Amino acid sequence: MSWIKRILIGKPLENEALKEEKYSVFWGLPILASDPISSVAYATEEILLVLVPAIGALAFHPLSWISGAIVMLLVVLTFSYRQTIKAYPSGGGAYIVASDNLGQYAGVIAGSALALDYILTVAVSIAAGTAAITSAFPALFQHQVAICLVILIILFFGNLRGIRESAKLFGLPTYAFIISVLVMIITGILKVKIFHYVPSEPMIHLKGALEPITIFLILRAFASGCTALTGVEAVSNAVPNFKEPTTKHAREVLLLLSFFVFILFAGISFLANVYHVVPIEGKTVLSQIAAEIFGGHNWFFYFFQFVTALILALAANTAFADFPMLFSVMSRDGYAPRQLSIRGERLSFSNGIVVLTLIAALLLVVFRGDTHRLIPLYAVGVFISFTLSQFGMFIKWIHSKEKGRAYKAIINGTGAVVTLVTVVIIGSTKFIHGAWIIIVVIPILMTIMIKIKKHYTAVAEQLRLKPEELKALNLSKTTYRNHVIVPVESVNKASVRALRYAQTISDNVVAFNVAIDEEAEVRFKEKWNFLQTNIPLIVKYSPYRKVVSPLIEFIESYEEHSYQPGDMITVVLPQFSVNAWWQVFLHNQSRLFITRNLLKHKHIVIATIPLQLKQDQEVLDKKHK
Amino acid sequence: MSWIKRILIGKPLENEALKEEKYSVFWGLPILASDPISSVAYATEEILLVLVPAIGALAFHPLSWISGAIVMLLVVLTFSYRQTIKAYPSGGGAYIVASDNLGQYAGVIAGSALALDYILTVAVSIAAGTAAITSAFPALFQHQVAICLVILIILFFGNLRGIRESAKLFGLPTYAFIISVLVMIITGILKVKIFHYVPSEPMIHLKGALEPITIFLILRAFASGCTALTGVEAVSNAVPNFKEPTTKHAREVLLLLSFFVFILFAGISFLANVYHVVPIEGKTVLSQIAAEIFGGHNWFFYFFQFVTALILALAANTAFADFPMLFSVMSRDGYAPRQLSIRGERLSFSNGIVVLTLIAALLLVVFRGDTHRLIPLYAVGVFISFTLSQFGMFIKWIHSKEKGRAYKAIINGTGAVVTLVTVVIIGSTKFIHGAWIIIVVIPILMTIMIKIKKHYTAVAEQLRLKPEELKALNLSKTTYRNHVIVPVESVNKASVRALRYAQTISDNVVAFNVAIDEEAEVRFKEKWNFLQTNIPLIVKYSPYRKVVSPLIEFIESYEEHSYQPGDMITVVLPQFSVNAWWQVFLHNQSRLFITRNLLKHKHIVIATIPLQLKQDQEVLDKKHK
Repeated sequence: MSWIKRILIGKPLENEALKEEKYSVFWGLPILASDPISSVAYATEEILLVLVPAIGALAFHPLSWISGAIVMLLVVLTFSYRQTIKAYPSGGGAYIVASDNLGQYAGVIAGSALALDYILTVAVSIAAGTAAITSAFPALFQHQVAICLVILIILFFGNLRGIRESAKLFGLPTYAFIISVLVMIITGILKVKIFHYVPSEPMIHLKGALEPITIFLILRAFASGCTALTGVEAVSNAVPNFKEPTTKHAREVLLLLSFFVFILFAGISFLANVYHVVPIEGKTVLSQIAAEIFGGHNWFFYFFQFVTALILALAANTAFADFPMLFSVMSRDGYAPRQLSIRGERLSFSNGIVVLTLIAALLLVVFRGDTHRLIPLYAVGVFISFTLSQFGMFIKWIHSKEKGRAYKAIINGTGAVVTLVTVVIIGSTKFIHGAWIIIVVIPILMTIMIKIKKHYTAVAEQLRLKPEELKALNLSKTTYRNHVIVPVESVNKASVRALRYAQTISDNVVAFNVAIDEEAEVRFKEKWNFLQTNIPLIVKYSPYRKVVSPLIEFIESYEEHSYQPGDMITVVLPQFSVNAWWQVFLHNQSRLFITRNLLKHKHIVIATIPLQLKQDQEVLDKKHK
Repeated sequence: MSWIKRILIGKPLENEALKEEKYSVFWGLPILASDPISSVAYATEEILLVLVPAIGALAFHPLSWISGAIVMLLVVLTFSYRQTIKAYPSGGGAYIVASDNLGQYAGVIAGSALALDYILTVAVSIAAGTAAITSAFPALFQHQVAICLVILIILFFGNLRGIRESAKLFGLPTYAFIISVLVMIITGILKVKIFHYVPSEPMIHLKGALEPITIFLILRAFASGCTALTGVEAVSNAVPNFKEPTTKHAREVLLLLSFFVFILFAGISFLANVYHVVPIEGKTVLSQIAAEIFGGHNWFFYFFQFVTALILALAANTAFADFPMLFSVMSRDGYAPRQLSIRGERLSFSNGIVVLTLIAALLLVVFRGDTHRLIPLYAVGVFISFTLSQFGMFIKWIHSKEKGRAYKAIINGTGAVVTLVTVVIIGSTKFIHGAWIIIVVIPILMTIMIKIKKHYTAVAEQLRLKPEELKALNLSKTTYRNHVIVPVESVNKASVRALRYAQTISDNVVAFNVAIDEEAEVRFKEKWNFLQTNIPLIVKYSPYRKVVSPLIEFIESYEEHSYQPGDMITVVLPQFSVNAWWQVFLHNQSRLFITRNLLKHKHIVIATIPLQLKQDQEVLDKKHK
C-alpha cells in the first residue's frame, strides 16, 4: 500500500517547501487571474441562456446593455478592492476584512460564503473546461460527467502531492488564453467590418419574442452574467505573495486583471452579437464564435479549445490552495478544528483537499457536469463575500482618522451598495434555480463554526490557571501514590515487558488475569509461578471470554478499596506495532475498547507499551529451521 | 447522537442474555426450518424459468422428473446429516467437520463457502420476500430494490439490537406457511380432481419446443431447483441448542424438516404442472398458483403472500445469527480476526452484522433485487460446503473403529458423491450466469484467511517464552531507568496534571515546549517560572507551527544522548474526554500523530492522561456570571 501512496501522493512535504516564490507583476497577473479571466469563457453564454429561450432573436439587444452593466460593476469592484489591498498589506480576504470591521458573526458569514465559493469554483470551472473539450470533440459529449471527474481526480492527486504554483508553468496558459481571445476578437471584428463577411444564420431558428421583455428577465440575465466577476478578489488575498513593494504590485495586477476581464468579456459579448451565436447543447458559445471566425476544423480552433480547457482547470486549481488556506486562518480564530491551523503539516491541507474534492465531485455528479445548472449556486456566495468585504471597508473608513477617509468611504460604500444590490438580484432571480441551496447552507455552516468556537472557548476556560492559582501550585510536592495494574493475558514476552516497566514506575503493581474456567486459571498460575515475582496476581472468571468488562469491574472495585483520594491508577497495555496495514485489524481491538472505557475515569492513566513485530514470513522460516 | 443510537440499537447486551432457550422438537423445527422451508417459495419457479423460455409448454414434463431428482437428493442429504448430528453432538457445521477430518485447508474452503452462503441467504431470501409482496401489490413492483433495502435495514437494526430468537414468536410464521401451503395443495388437488375445475390457460401464450430438450438444459434446470435444499444443514449446526437428549431431538427435527420440504416442494411443483402456471414478470409462480386456487383478491391470498414474505424474512434473519457465529468459530482457530471470537462482546457480532448487511445490500442493488439473478451464485457455495462436510464424514468413518462404520461410510460417501456431482452440475451450467463469481471469490477469501492464520502463528512465536527463558527471568531486578518527557503546549491545568503525574513515575522528568518565535518563548517561560519547579524545560523553535516533528526530533536526540541501552522513555500526553461526538474531531489530532510515530520506537511508552471536559454551555454560563 505504501508504494501506491508514494506514487500518487509523493513524499512528505518539508517545511522549506512552504516558502513560496514571490510574484512580479508579469507573473503574478496570470497566476491570480486564471479564476476571474477564465469566467469570461462562460459568462456571455449564461446571459444568452436566459434571454434566447424567452425572447429569441431580440436577445442581442439586452445582451449589450447587460454586458455594459456588468463591466461597470467590474470598474466599481476594481476601485474598491484597490483600497482593500492598500489597507490590508498582509492579505485582506473577505473573512478577515469582515471580522475586523463588522464583528465575528459577519466574518463567519463571509467565511461560509467563501468556503462555498471555492467549492463552486472547482465544480463550475471543471464543468466549463469539460464543455470546451466536448465542443471540440462532440463524440465525448455523452461522457461529460466522466471527463469532469477525471479532471477533478487529476487536480486532487496533483494537490495532494503538493503542486507548487510555479509562476511560469502556471502563468503560460493564462497568457495563451488572453492572447487567443484577443486575436479572435480582432479577427472577428475585421472579418465583419472590413471584409464584409456575412455570418451564417444561427444554427437554431430564432423566432421573435415569445415572452415580453420584463425587468425580471433582464435582471435574471444580469445575475447570470455576474459570474464573469468571480475571482476578482483573489489579488487582495495574495498581497504578501508579491515582490516588494507588495501593495503597489498587487494594485497594478488588479488593474491589469480588470482591464483584461473588461476587454475579453466585452469583446466576446460583442462577437456573440455580431455573429448571432446562440447557446446550443453540446457547443459552447465561445467555441461557436471561434468556429465561425477561424473555421471549425483547423488547428487554431482545437488549440483555442485546449487553452480554454486548460485555463479553466487552472482556475479550479486555485481553489485547491485557497480552500485549506481559508480554513487555516479561520481555525486560528477557533472557528474550525484547530489542527487545520498548523501550516506545513501535510495532514491539515490534505483533509481540506479531500473534503473539497468530495463535495465538488458530488456537485458534478448531481448537476451532471453542466455549467449552466451550477451557475445559480455560484454567484450568490461570491457576491455575499464581496458585500461583506466592501461594507467592512466602509465601516473601517468611517471609524478611521486617516486623511482622505471620506473619499475612500464613498468608494467602498458604493462598492458595498452595488454588490448588495447584486446579491439581492441574484438571490431573488436565481432563488428557485439553486441559489436557495446556498442560502440554506450558509446558516448551517455558520452554526457549526460558532459551535466550534464556543467549544474551544469553554475548553480554554477549563484549562486556565488564574495567576493566584499558579502561585499556589507546588509541583515538587507530590502527595499521592501511583497504583499500577497490568492486565496479563498470558505469560509471554509482551506481558513480561509490561510487568518490568510497571515496576519501574511504582511499588504498587498488581497483575490481572481473566480466566474462562478453573482449568485455565490453574494453567495460568503454573506459568506465572515460573516468574518468581512477588507482584500480586488477581484472577477473575469470565465464562463468556469477555476480557474488558471484568477488567473494568476490577479497576472500579480497586478504586473503591485500595485507593486514596487523589491517587492515580496506571493501566499498562501492550500494543503491537505491525508491518502491514491489514494486520492492524487483527490486534488491539480490546485495547481500544479498554482505553475508551477507562478514559471516562478521572484518575486512570493508560500507559501504552509498544512491541514491534517482525515480518511473519521471517519468523515462520526461522521457526521451521 | 447517543439517544439515537440507544433507540436504534438498544442498550448493551448483558452476559446473561447469551444463555439461549433450549429447543423442543416442536419449536426447534420452525426456527431451524425457516431457511430450507422458505426455499420452496422460489425453487419451482427457478426450474420453470430455465425450461419455459426454451421449450414452452413442454416444460411441465421435465419439471416432474427434475423435482423428483431433487427430492431424492434431499433424502440422501437427510440420511447423511442424521449421521453428522450423531457424530457431532456439540455442533457439526461444514467448517468443523471438514477441518477435523480433511485438514485445515478443506476447513477454510468450507468456511469461505459458508460465509458466501450466509450472505446469499440474506440477499436471495429478501429478494424472494419482496417478490411475494410485489406479487400481491403490483404497483410496488417498480420499487423492488427499495423494498429489499427496507427489509434489510429492519433486519440490520433488529440484529444490532440483538433479536433473541424467541422460539414461539419466530416459530409461528413457519407453521403458518407450512399449513397454508398444505391447505393450498389439498384444495388445489381437490378442485381439479374432484370438482373438475379447468385451469385457465397460461397468461402468456406457450408455444411448443423452441429449442431441443438437451441434457444441458435439464441439468441447468436441476441446478436451479437445488436451491430448494439450501439450509438443510442448519440442524446439524445447532445440536447443542436442543433440549436433552440433544442428538435425538435434532435428528427428529431434521427428519421432520426434510419431510415438509419434500411435501411442500413436490406439492408446489405438482400444482404448477396441473394449473399450467408459468413464470411471468411481477408475479411469482407461487402467487399465481395461490391466485388460481383461492382467487386473486380475497383475504386468504393476501394472508398467504404476507406469510410467504414473513418466512423469507425469517430465513434471511437466521443468516444474521449464523454468519458471526461461523467467524467466531473460525477466529478461535486463527483464521479470522481474534476479536470475533469473543462471544458476548457485542462489538464482535456487530462487526459481522455490518459486513453482512453491506455486502447483501450491494448484491441487492447490483442484481436489482431479483431472486432469479441471484440464484446462480447461491446454490454453488451451499453444495461445496455440503460436499466437504459429507466427504469429511466419509473419511471419519474410514478411519474409525466404530461398529457399523462400513454402513455409515456408505451413507456419507453416497452423500459426498451426490453433492459433488451437484456442485459440478451447478458450477458448469450456471458458470456464466454468476457461479464464476463464487468460484473466484472463494480462493480470495481462503488466501486472506490463511494469511491471517500465518500472522497469528508468527506473533505467538515471537511472544513465546521457552521454559528455560521463563526460569532465567528475574522480574524483581529492574536495572534500567525510566525517563519521562512531558510535552507542554502551555502552562494550564492539563499540563500541570501531566507534570504532577510524571513526577510520581520517575525522577528523570523533562518538560518540552514548541515555540513559534522568541516572543512566544519569553511569554511561555514567564508562566513556567510561576510553577517554581526544578523540572528542566526544553524549548524548541518551529516557525511553521509544526508540533509533532520537533518533539520527535527531540526524543530521537534524547535517545542518543541521555539514554542508556535498556532504559525506557515515557511520553506523557493529555487526552481530552469530550461530551459530544463531534468534539472528538476538534482535539487529539496531534496526539494521534505523535502516538503513531512514537510507537515505532522500541523503548518509548506513551502514558495517556485523561481530562474530562465539562459541557460547553455550563462552563460559558459560569464564566459570564
